[in-house]
Amino acid sequence: MITTLTSEERAQLAKILPEWRLAREKDALLRSFEFADFVAAFGFMTRVALLAEKMDHHPEWSNVYNRVEILLTTHDCNGLSARDVTLAQAIDHLLAP
Amino acid sequence: MITTLTSEERAQLAKILPEWRLAREKDALLRSFEFADFVAAFGFMTRVALLAEKMDHHPEWSNVYNRVEILLTTHDCNGLSARDVTLAQAIDHLLAP
Repeated sequence: MITTLTSEERAQLAKILPEWRLAREKDALLRSFEFADFVAAFGFMTRVALLAEKMDHHPEWSNVYNRVEILLTTHDCNGLSARDVTLAQAIDHLLAP
Repeated sequence: MITTLTSEERAQLAKILPEWRLAREKDALLRSFEFADFVAAFGFMTRVALLAEKMDHHPEWSNVYNRVEILLTTHDCNGLSARDVTLAQAIDHLLAP
């Protein structure tokens, strides 16, 4: 059973996911990305798509030219779960130098 | 120079792009798509991305699992132009049986 993060787990978020912030409109993680152009942005989206499909956990996301916004939440528990944290970390890892 | 559609051209939209509607918040075309699953939705997005890059005209779009929403507008003229109509038709063509 998937449960939402405890307050102890939430307290760790700023440390383990410093680039992500909490969404205001729902219990979710949010990060904005900016790339050189559309090809770079969509190339990144393709890598995230493969990751998401493999993890069977999918983002809510949007793209406008070189910008991508990713929102992570877990519908099964109607809020933020460990699955979102794991996917956010995996996405960060894609961009690690 | 890119210009926004004339009222005569706008009057044709319902006929040539029956699946698209006008956005309320800006001068843009909008269409929602629903697929069997994420793989089908992202596969479609990949085809649209290649099309958009080739036409050098890019959508504002979002995806949540099997749903894709595409908004087309032209920043160079701050509204709906012939480029949006051409891209919308090309997208429709991708889904033609």
